Amino acid sequence: MSPEPISFTPIGYVRSAYGDTAEIPKGLGATHVAEGFLEIRPDLEPGLADIDGFSHLVVLWVFHRVEGYQLAVTPPNDDRPHGVFATRFPGRPNPIGLTNVELIRREGNRLYVRGLDMLDGTPILDIKPYLSSIPEAKLRRGWLAESEARNKAKE
Amino acid sequence: MSPEPISFTPIGYVRSAYGDTAEIPKGLGATHVAEGFLEIRPDLEPGLADIDGFSHLVVLWVFHRVEGYQLAVTPPNDDRPHGVFATRFPGRPNPIGLTNVELIRREGNRLYVRGLDMLDGTPILDIKPYLSSIPEAKLRRGWLAESEARNKAKE
Repeated sequence: MSPEPISFTPIGYVRSAYGDTAEIPKGLGATHVAEGFLEIRPDLEPGLADIDGFSHLVVLWVFHRVEGYQLAVTPPNDDRPHGVFATRFPGRPNPIGLTNVELIRREGNRLYVRGLDMLDGTPILDIKPYLSSIPEAKLRRGWLAESEARNKAKE
Repeated sequence: MSPEPISFTPIGYVRSAYGDTAEIPKGLGATHVAEGFLEIRPDLEPGLADIDGFSHLVVLWVFHRVEGYQLAVTPPNDDRPHGVFATRFPGRPNPIGLTNVELIRREGNRLYVRGLDMLDGTPILDIKPYLSSIPEAKLRRGWLAESEARNKAKE
């Protein structure tokens, strides 16, 4: 395997109230209800046609303030290390973030959304319709479920 | 907005039975049950620790055979054009694919999974645990639901 770098150009930027990562609720169990908008490049606005029909969107974006990565990370809601691919830690080999947001409305090249967890100015790579869910009953959530159980026992 | 390109290096490659896109079930309603494995770069294997505890993973990858993009596309299961960001069409401004797969088992740097819809040799950008679902009752699926209803009426 001799991987070649692949280059992407942002399709737009996140406009949120978060100016500092310390303001963003952290950890896998955190709830995100912040509102803001996704400002898409004017030349790409025709690509948003019909997006209003979807209630939820998947946003792919860049952790643009992160440099370097770790392979073993200890998440904020746990006290032991896990492989970075078993977490959503920002300092990953390719610092790409994924957020599911609720689409409130579209105004031209702006998508007003709820559920942001990105800094203001975050570069957006792609937006896709959120289509279907894996039933909760079929999900296993590994160390996260164990960590939640431990934290609950401490309460 | 003056976007700067951002460069990523694949963390590994998809190993699937699909040698040609014609073999892959298409359209937003398609069901994917193909098995195969995600071969992660040996230097990144420590990043897979504890991933076995999760039943489902989100895989971000590159439509590596696609060149260029369209802003208005007519999907295989519909007869009218939609904005590319309201579809999962490959020829998008940043040709990044997203697939939710079921993790069967891990063997070293190989993640055996079910639900692949990528070509053999597809570069992988990132892997994340699939954590929670938006309840189906809360989802609106825009033109896709309308298209499904029209197709059903034709049967």
